[in-house]
Amino acid sequence: MQEEISLGELAARFGLTLRGSPDLKVSHVATLSQATPGSVSFLANSRYRKGLKETRASAVVVSEGEAEGCPVVALITPNPYLAYARIASLLHPQMRATPGIHPTAVVAKSARIDSSAAVGPLAVIEEEVELGERVEVGPGCIVQRGARVGADTRLIARANLYAGVSIGQRCIVHAGAVIGADGFGFASDRGTWVKVPQVGSVRIGDDVEIGANTTIDRGAIADTVIEEGVKLDNLIQIGHNATIGAHTAIAACSGISGSTTVGRRCMIGGMVGMAGHLTIADDVVITGFTLISASIREAGSYSSGMPAVPTRAWRRMVAHLRKFGKKER
Amino acid sequence: MQEEISLGELAARFGLTLRGSPDLKVSHVATLSQATPGSVSFLANSRYRKGLKETRASAVVVSEGEAEGCPVVALITPNPYLAYARIASLLHPQMRATPGIHPTAVVAKSARIDSSAAVGPLAVIEEEVELGERVEVGPGCIVQRGARVGADTRLIARANLYAGVSIGQRCIVHAGAVIGADGFGFASDRGTWVKVPQVGSVRIGDDVEIGANTTIDRGAIADTVIEEGVKLDNLIQIGHNATIGAHTAIAACSGISGSTTVGRRCMIGGMVGMAGHLTIADDVVITGFTLISASIREAGSYSSGMPAVPTRAWRRMVAHLRKFGKKER
Amino acid sequence: MQEEISLGELAARFGLTLRGSPDLKVSHVATLSQATPGSVSFLANSRYRKGLKETRASAVVVSEGEAEGCPVVALITPNPYLAYARIASLLHPQMRATPGIHPTAVVAKSARIDSSAAVGPLAVIEEEVELGERVEVGPGCIVQRGARVGADTRLIARANLYAGVSIGQRCIVHAGAVIGADGFGFASDRGTWVKVPQVGSVRIGDDVEIGANTTIDRGAIADTVIEEGVKLDNLIQIGHNATIGAHTAIAACSGISGSTTVGRRCMIGGMVGMAGHLTIADDVVITGFTLISASIREAGSYSSGMPAVPTRAWRRMVAHLRKFGKKER
Repeated sequence: MQEEISLGELAARFGLTLRGSPDLKVSHVATLSQATPGSVSFLANSRYRKGLKETRASAVVVSEGEAEGCPVVALITPNPYLAYARIASLLHPQMRATPGIHPTAVVAKSARIDSSAAVGPLAVIEEEVELGERVEVGPGCIVQRGARVGADTRLIARANLYAGVSIGQRCIVHAGAVIGADGFGFASDRGTWVKVPQVGSVRIGDDVEIGANTTIDRGAIADTVIEEGVKLDNLIQIGHNATIGAHTAIAACSGISGSTTVGRRCMIGGMVGMAGHLTIADDVVITGFTLISASIREAGSYSSGMPAVPTRAWRRMVAHLRKFGKKER
Repeated sequence: MQEEISLGELAARFGLTLRGSPDLKVSHVATLSQATPGSVSFLANSRYRKGLKETRASAVVVSEGEAEGCPVVALITPNPYLAYARIASLLHPQMRATPGIHPTAVVAKSARIDSSAAVGPLAVIEEEVELGERVEVGPGCIVQRGARVGADTRLIARANLYAGVSIGQRCIVHAGAVIGADGFGFASDRGTWVKVPQVGSVRIGDDVEIGANTTIDRGAIADTVIEEGVKLDNLIQIGHNATIGAHTAIAACSGISGSTTVGRRCMIGGMVGMAGHLTIADDVVITGFTLISASIREAGSYSSGMPAVPTRAWRRMVAHLRKFGKKER
Repeated sequence: MQEEISLGELAARFGLTLRGSPDLKVSHVATLSQATPGSVSFLANSRYRKGLKETRASAVVVSEGEAEGCPVVALITPNPYLAYARIASLLHPQMRATPGIHPTAVVAKSARIDSSAAVGPLAVIEEEVELGERVEVGPGCIVQRGARVGADTRLIARANLYAGVSIGQRCIVHAGAVIGADGFGFASDRGTWVKVPQVGSVRIGDDVEIGANTTIDRGAIADTVIEEGVKLDNLIQIGHNATIGAHTAIAACSGISGSTTVGRRCMIGGMVGMAGHLTIADDVVITGFTLISASIREAGSYSSGMPAVPTRAWRRMVAHLRKFGKKER
């Protein structure tokens, strides 16, 4: 599967400064400590610097500042992680499914499936679905009535698109993701709940990645919107009518409540919770385990995650704080 | 799909006070800002009042207090959201599946499936399962040995009912929900864990909705119980032997630990965690991102979610609190 | 399904001290309050002591200290919960699937499936997969290219193993679990994200249990590792290149970020979040709803979950703390 490529060619292709022999060839990526001849590795986080000295890689992608400590060929760039990502994509290309529809897939007659698309075993494609060029629908995926999937998008396995959902091009949807289930909308009627029909849909832009078992609810009336380039980790909940701005990344186990609008290029840590009906500015960073209960109007970093301490100390901290809950002071 | 209905008829059917022409017809719901002639909209949250003035809807459902600001026909009621829910259900009726068993479904001979029920493609119905009248089992659902599903309940797609689970009437189970997996029960044996068989089941009442990828574990000995009218959002965990009281609603990403009993008509925010073996009274409200580590005996609102502040300020707040952890004062 | 066994035999088999008739027979387990003649019950948590007095069980497994209060036959042991687990396993043995491949399963020719293994309806087994002796792959599971499953492991239903994942012996994987999806790795390129190929895999040891809808990401370069005897509850996220040490148990809704190493025999509560690149010592206990943002070098109990109070009191506590965020003091 893997190609073999000379360091000189790598440097030329990705604009790296080569320090060492251009003729050595590499075939795969490896960590600094597990590398062997033929490996290319990288150093992007100084906490792994120790591994650099002892690496047996053929070459290491490093920043100018780390190049001096590199005992093998150095591929120098201001952004080693980015260069590494591109090298790894070249050496370990994504395997593509063979076009065609597996005989065990259940495909409605009215579905429009490009001839270059691949539909895997035991997938279900309902009426009026559209699958673009080179789309891959993996085993066990369910694409419901009228959903549309743009070119080169891959649903890895056992993902669900509810009726009417649309996804852009070059997206990746991991196993167990559910896109377009009903939003959580109920009206109170003297102590019981009356379901509010969720008649909106979900629109997802290009180049979006959606993690395993993540859920994105359909809109109550208008649509839930995930703009282009958004990256969602696993087990994330996106409520109805939320909007996630372009190129925002959200780490695992976070939840964005209904009708909240998150800006562009935000970086949201794991296990962050956002209340509903908020507006979050562009370029906001939220550290992990933080509650966002009010809108954020300015770019910057925000937090409320309390770091752990020994349980006995924690009890004293809680007792201290509780004194201030007792009465107005 | 959509019906068209006059405002006069809507007002009569749902007991609304009509201010304006009874003869205008509407065919669909829309948000205030996206509405066009033919739309009916609503105002239930004053933060959207601005949209009211500029709406192009044919009619808006409003409270008495907001009617004055309504530039189009007003449908007046004390609970606009509830009236909206009923109107939306009328204009956008749920599509029902065609009765019958899809030829690709795998159905055990001993299963008892009402002739009005629908079993979708690639669903699995194991031995001794019972499906009531008009039950819909969507594509990819797995209903294991002896599970029972009451009349008019819909499993949308790719949901799992483990063996012996029972669900009432008119329930909705969204994609990826897992009902009846083993509870998390292990006995410690000198540093290793011995599995405690989970021999109970799950009993779910009528009119329950269960969100996408939510998990409800089977009881260790007795059953886990979800009473009638409970609404569970996505990605919620309900531990073994928990009981969720009737008409309680729980927002996404919350977790209720084993053997905890939650009262009736509680409203539990997102990302709330409850420890095990607790008792929560009826009519308790818990705001999002709150930890419940002790029983709650009285109705009321409870919180512990810390709202975010700029990270630099947060560090100072943590440093302050930490001083009180250091020693008894 | 259930066997019937005399109390004398139970005592002998599991090394319990019998106080009462050895000839009574029991056939099933029950809670203290629901027990009837023929039931064996247990008392392991003193908060359920009240039930002991009134139980109608034939026998109760108790500690020496509780035996006096037992009105029926007592089976005495220092660890009643452990003895109960063993008795319950004996009386309620796990049903095993019939060996063989269901005709609706889709199995690649190059897969190596032991003749004693069982592959259920609508499962997908891709190329080069290996399934060991007595492995059970339940309905709707998807085992992708080259994944390996050790003897006696059971994938209950609708679980996913991505390509190349390996699982040890005697494991249990519950419905909806996703093992081996891409880690959350992206390099920043002037405001957009470039995917970092995730070329590692996941290695899971023997006797591991993985809960419903839990996700374990594949490594970026090296593998994500779950050591033997680990127990993971539902809806847990394990990030790429994390290592979970042997016999550690993690409760539901927790998230372990990438490259974090958790020690052996740790007990981690529900809704715990761990940042990435940390090291947690062996024998660490973390209470529920705690954020771990730094490495923990010593065994012990750690916390940061703030217990709920009435919302009004909570507002005062937050206001107090916020004063200390305003400026350096």
